[in-house]
Amino acid sequence: MTRSRQLHLGAFMRPVSLHTGAWRFPGAFPDANFNISHLKRFVQTLERACFDAFFMADHLAVLNMPPAALRRSHTVTSFEPLTLLAALSSVTERIGLIATSSTTFDEPYHVARRFASLDHLSGGRAGWNLVTTSNPDAALNFGLEAHVEHGERYHRAREFYDVVTGLWDSWADDAFVRDVESGVFVDTERMHVLGHKGEHLSVRGPLNIARPVQGWPVVVQAGSSEAGRQIAAETADAVFTAPPSLAEGQRFYADVKSRVERAGRDPEHLKILPGAFVVVGDSVDEAREKRALLDTFVHYDSGIASLSIALGHDVSQLDPDSLLPEIPESNASKSSRQRVVDWARRDQLTIRQLAQRIGGYSGLEMVGTPATIADQMEQWLVERGSDGFNVMFPYLPGGLDDFADKVVPELQRRGIFRRAYEGTTLRDHLGLPRPENRFFARRSGD
Amino acid sequence: MTRSRQLHLGAFMRPVSLHTGAWRFPGAFPDANFNISHLKRFVQTLERACFDAFFMADHLAVLNMPPAALRRSHTVTSFEPLTLLAALSSVTERIGLIATSSTTFDEPYHVARRFASLDHLSGGRAGWNLVTTSNPDAALNFGLEAHVEHGERYHRAREFYDVVTGLWDSWADDAFVRDVESGVFVDTERMHVLGHKGEHLSVRGPLNIARPVQGWPVVVQAGSSEAGRQIAAETADAVFTAPPSLAEGQRFYADVKSRVERAGRDPEHLKILPGAFVVVGDSVDEAREKRALLDTFVHYDSGIASLSIALGHDVSQLDPDSLLPEIPESNASKSSRQRVVDWARRDQLTIRQLAQRIGGYSGLEMVGTPATIADQMEQWLVERGSDGFNVMFPYLPGGLDDFADKVVPELQRRGIFRRAYEGTTLRDHLGLPRPENRFFARRSGD
Repeated sequence: MTRSRQLHLGAFMRPVSLHTGAWRFPGAFPDANFNISHLKRFVQTLERACFDAFFMADHLAVLNMPPAALRRSHTVTSFEPLTLLAALSSVTERIGLIATSSTTFDEPYHVARRFASLDHLSGGRAGWNLVTTSNPDAALNFGLEAHVEHGERYHRAREFYDVVTGLWDSWADDAFVRDVESGVFVDTERMHVLGHKGEHLSVRGPLNIARPVQGWPVVVQAGSSEAGRQIAAETADAVFTAPPSLAEGQRFYADVKSRVERAGRDPEHLKILPGAFVVVGDSVDEAREKRALLDTFVHYDSGIASLSIALGHDVSQLDPDSLLPEIPESNASKSSRQRVVDWARRDQLTIRQLAQRIGGYSGLEMVGTPATIADQMEQWLVERGSDGFNVMFPYLPGGLDDFADKVVPELQRRGIFRRAYEGTTLRDHLGLPRPENRFFARRSGD
Repeated sequence: MTRSRQLHLGAFMRPVSLHTGAWRFPGAFPDANFNISHLKRFVQTLERACFDAFFMADHLAVLNMPPAALRRSHTVTSFEPLTLLAALSSVTERIGLIATSSTTFDEPYHVARRFASLDHLSGGRAGWNLVTTSNPDAALNFGLEAHVEHGERYHRAREFYDVVTGLWDSWADDAFVRDVESGVFVDTERMHVLGHKGEHLSVRGPLNIARPVQGWPVVVQAGSSEAGRQIAAETADAVFTAPPSLAEGQRFYADVKSRVERAGRDPEHLKILPGAFVVVGDSVDEAREKRALLDTFVHYDSGIASLSIALGHDVSQLDPDSLLPEIPESNASKSSRQRVVDWARRDQLTIRQLAQRIGGYSGLEMVGTPATIADQMEQWLVERGSDGFNVMFPYLPGGLDDFADKVVPELQRRGIFRRAYEGTTLRDHLGLPRPENRFFARRSGD
């Protein structure tokens, strides 16, 4: 290979920002999450910046929060992902469009069909973020009193995936001949009836839409559990992760890539894309001040609860304006506890400030100048912590515009991110092969 | 009222033409049904012609036909309606967008959410064609060995409707305050938890999207059975019907409107819109020739089967090029049998021609000049056979362009169809009120 490894960038966009204070930042659009004109502008900006994809997370319920937190949540409602991305497909040409859809609360015929439809509408830009939905509130919206147990959900998910991909292969790529003269519209010998009868699902087929432009839309997964990693290694095209540090990212990367290889696949054909919360400033101090200002918009009550969980120790009775005292050992994950303590010490944060930071966003962050952010991203790429990132913006439109206008050009200068799209499909952008149809070989001459 | 009653026009668009020979007509797009660029052009033409709505019918299976018929079917696959209409919402501003969705094979939380999403994406232009799905092939794609029985389907449909509309009312119209200063994004006292537990469905709520722009998207139904008429009278905003003649249309119209009144509703608030297959010519003869040419593209095998069913008598053994002999009485519906016989006599059709006509399209048709078609439409309107029509085009784009460019101006000259949209929502176009939220009264001053 003559050029360096390339970063892949998704924009993780539901809500438009994960930070609970985003909507109150000076100059931010308070309704950014639910204004289609804004969202069209955002996706067009991302496309100009050559992002691989726009990525819609999703929930199937209003999250169960105390009223005091719920009333402050700008993420309480949102557009439904498939309809939103279909609307955005009409105002974009190249950027990938990834929607979340659940294997626990939907039917494989519907899911296969909708993603095939989005793929055709967008000219091959659809991606399916396959989730099993761990939120117990969702079950109550779908007729289930108790939530489906984790192992059971994963077994169904695996079977669901097999059915969906089988349905996508219902028609050979060349089945639709549309021969006006002879009157033959479709070659029915190039149609496959799936006839699936499994443990959880029974689906006859064929799918009532042509094979997707990409063969199969890109399949994204996010599970970090043992079962989640294994199903991802066997089936996913991309994995969304949330490692809090490069070291943890490298461990995850090595583990999943070796699982991919053991499953008989090329490790390059699964892209690992951690979420990264990025705040851009003209100086590192300015970026940290932006983050600090953003955190002041987080409600103390919700922040202090998150902080107590992260520390494994109730700190809600302490003086919010004092510094964090020594915290005894606890059941909390050691590394995440240590990270919180390190933050407090490094930035000399009061308990209030620390609570608001944790309540705002507590995962992997890159807060600095375009150069320091590019340094971090390059390090992750070169040192095999990831194949790119799902970027999360602190507020909209400023945080997104800063990334597109300042960080992307820096990545491009370093030769680690494209200056123009080279292909037309999401698979092209991610460097993934187009799957063969499992039921129909290509005809010679194709 | 100072102006005459107004026609309402929907374009019934899945497949783009119902006529099985449509894709082979000279100048027609063979891929009209599955080419998003074409479909964007069609919907924009309909919007310029001020149509109330673009209406997507749907199936949840590849229809079970003999291979000889299936391979000639241009309707074998299609886009999924909600994703297609969302994509079309981005290239239109006013026209309504009605999608079909099943109460038997989907979940009310999903259905409520997707139509609410389409309504917000389109600025209040969504409609839900509520169907119970009578096609037994669909059941096999959703894990059911036997099809759900008719009465059972209607009971579930009625409960499903109650849940969907209840979910649409999850939030008061003014719930989202987004007060940046105080940090209150949503007034949680203006949120309603449905907590539905019924015979078929158990759904907690609230819906995770704001109340639709229209309050509730427009609800369309198509059932003509006793149960179908009654549920429509109680709940629908519009009814799609298929009466073969004005007399039958008038009977249906009177029956359903009186049911609406008995249900305590204003009969003007339910619009009855029969399907009408329209072929436009510069003369009546030219229009009939177009129809006859179109019918030649219908495969004889599928046509003769349809003809035998319509007559209640197997005519497949007769000489295809002879005229229709006397046909004995049978179990076939008398009126539809008589209509077929009348066609054969009036136009001196051979058995082949008659079979191809029936196989092409056998419902209500308007074949003539812009003036004779406008005459027919006006008569139906004035004599209370309908409140308008769901127009079906014989082939695309010609059949659609002819209607938009020639018939619509004639209807406008007569003062029975709008020259410009007066409102912005589909409810505005149809003259329907915006439903109050059943859980939240408007605040004084609203």
